[in-house]
Amino acid sequence: MTASVEAVAAMAGVSVSTVSRALRAVPGVSATTRKRVQDAARELGYSASPAASRLATGRTRAVGIVVPVLAKWFFGKVISEAARTLREAGFDVLLFELATRAQRERFFAGAQLHGRTDGVIIMALQPTGDELESLVSQGQAVALLGAEAPGIGSVSVDNFSAGRAAVRHLLNLGHERIAFIGIRDDERSNLGGVPPRQRLLGYREALSEAGLPEDSTLEQLDENSVAGGAAAMSRLLVAEQVPTAAFVASDEMAFGVLKILRKAGLDIPRDFSVLGFDNHELSDVVDLTTMDHEVAEQGQSAARILLDVLDGRAPAALGHPVRLVVRGTTGPPRALP
Amino acid sequence: MTASVEAVAAMAGVSVSTVSRALRAVPGVSATTRKRVQDAARELGYSASPAASRLATGRTRAVGIVVPVLAKWFFGKVISEAARTLREAGFDVLLFELATRAQRERFFAGAQLHGRTDGVIIMALQPTGDELESLVSQGQAVALLGAEAPGIGSVSVDNFSAGRAAVRHLLNLGHERIAFIGIRDDERSNLGGVPPRQRLLGYREALSEAGLPEDSTLEQLDENSVAGGAAAMSRLLVAEQVPTAAFVASDEMAFGVLKILRKAGLDIPRDFSVLGFDNHELSDVVDLTTMDHEVAEQGQSAARILLDVLDGRAPAALGHPVRLVVRGTTGPPRALP
Repeated sequence: MTASVEAVAAMAGVSVSTVSRALRAVPGVSATTRKRVQDAARELGYSASPAASRLATGRTRAVGIVVPVLAKWFFGKVISEAARTLREAGFDVLLFELATRAQRERFFAGAQLHGRTDGVIIMALQPTGDELESLVSQGQAVALLGAEAPGIGSVSVDNFSAGRAAVRHLLNLGHERIAFIGIRDDERSNLGGVPPRQRLLGYREALSEAGLPEDSTLEQLDENSVAGGAAAMSRLLVAEQVPTAAFVASDEMAFGVLKILRKAGLDIPRDFSVLGFDNHELSDVVDLTTMDHEVAEQGQSAARILLDVLDGRAPAALGHPVRLVVRGTTGPPRALP
Repeated sequence: MTASVEAVAAMAGVSVSTVSRALRAVPGVSATTRKRVQDAARELGYSASPAASRLATGRTRAVGIVVPVLAKWFFGKVISEAARTLREAGFDVLLFELATRAQRERFFAGAQLHGRTDGVIIMALQPTGDELESLVSQGQAVALLGAEAPGIGSVSVDNFSAGRAAVRHLLNLGHERIAFIGIRDDERSNLGGVPPRQRLLGYREALSEAGLPEDSTLEQLDENSVAGGAAAMSRLLVAEQVPTAAFVASDEMAFGVLKILRKAGLDIPRDFSVLGFDNHELSDVVDLTTMDHEVAEQGQSAARILLDVLDGRAPAALGHPVRLVVRGTTGPPRALP
């Protein structure tokens, strides 16, 4: 049971990374090649399970967590919960922040994890097929959070439906002029932009279903921070016709929106309703209505999925539910005088 | 210039770690041993600068950052700023969260950084002399944040003076019954507890200087979180004589204090003044008066000090200033009826 991957590669006449890909059912390997590798592995008694192969080659008992940015509540929370779950299973955790494109390229092209970790959780980033193959061919077990890929374990939420649900609540309260304040998909960032984009598409869908016209001046994108939310709300306040409500695609931005509204002397929610996204631990303090997407549980799920893969079990693709948390920043619009 | 540390150790008749300690002026090496090691190093042309020795042994171009907890705003912020400074200098960053005593022991006893990093920034944790020696003898350059040690570069603030200054502001406003809400020094945690303890001692000193009696029922410690602050404030609300103000040793706890006061229907600051510590990015959103201790700049300073040590320069011990940021949660106490 301790045949090496090199022996399997030699017998099948392929590279080591092809053996790894073939035995993990990663796309990009032809059916005939996969069959040849499987036959060689069976003949040599080679097990493709990461746990078994690492018993032979020496496990690091460490897992990497890779994020585009650390100093955001969402990432701090999912990292912390994933790390706790991994530690309880006996693994050390190494964290990698890929803040720039250059760092991202170096991380996926190089072998920064080699000999350091048995597996890795990639958060957001929307890794490409090539990037995932690079990790798998380095022998890393992989799990994704906030992204999906065929054959790879993942944790995500349905951001499109969640965005639509949030806006429906504002519509149901009687709002007709509803803004979207969202995260700007900065080309220099590694966020990947898919979840924020899905929230915007859900917003548009809800307006369309309600028969309301699309109005691009109501869509304000900015950086994902208190300052970004404040800047976006300030732009809405100088519109010819100010909206009566906003769906804000991150609670941190919503905190900036609330700050500006209060400075402007507006009454919340009588003059303006604010609905956030995250259920940030401070949203309760400022009484913010928001969409909860089980952030802590997402972190735990990602860790458990990676542990499953490390134990040779099939990778799960898990979706977490999103629910409305009603607090004090939303209500019916003020009746016209 | 490429003589090995082993050669120096052999000539001086001491261990490799003693050579390392002697040439870095770490305590625990006698003057005569230090002299013998220095003579051997000079004779062999051995340089103790980490940069020079790593040129011979191969640098990793990576730096470790070690924290007791990740999911706290303070640590997220200092890590993020330190990591940016290190990246700009061409270093990768590996993060280690030592959440439990067992992890801490394994980290300092083992060689988790060996071959992975050229140096390490230890945040909080209050490392012991033995723990620091272990890192130095592994060839790691070391810088501290929120802790100090002889011969080691560090960044810190004067928490005692800052605590005293915060309470003096409340005294100057006319408050006479002032509570302290602080971070519980949990034996299971790795926080180290020194900065929170210094803030408490500063509080006591200010009360004593004002001729006010010490009252242990006014000192409420709890976990460093919104929930911990809320729990501590709830205990003060059932006192025989409720205080008129609180100095809260972390803004996250202060957010919980504000939440409970608002739920209790009290007017802030007329009925109760709250003064926090951190200048958290959301303190502006809830209009919290607080003590700013240059959190972002502390992270940058720690990185620059480590880079200096890696370049063979002397380790600096840098103190950052703390200043009062006046916002809307503090004011004179309500006049007695």
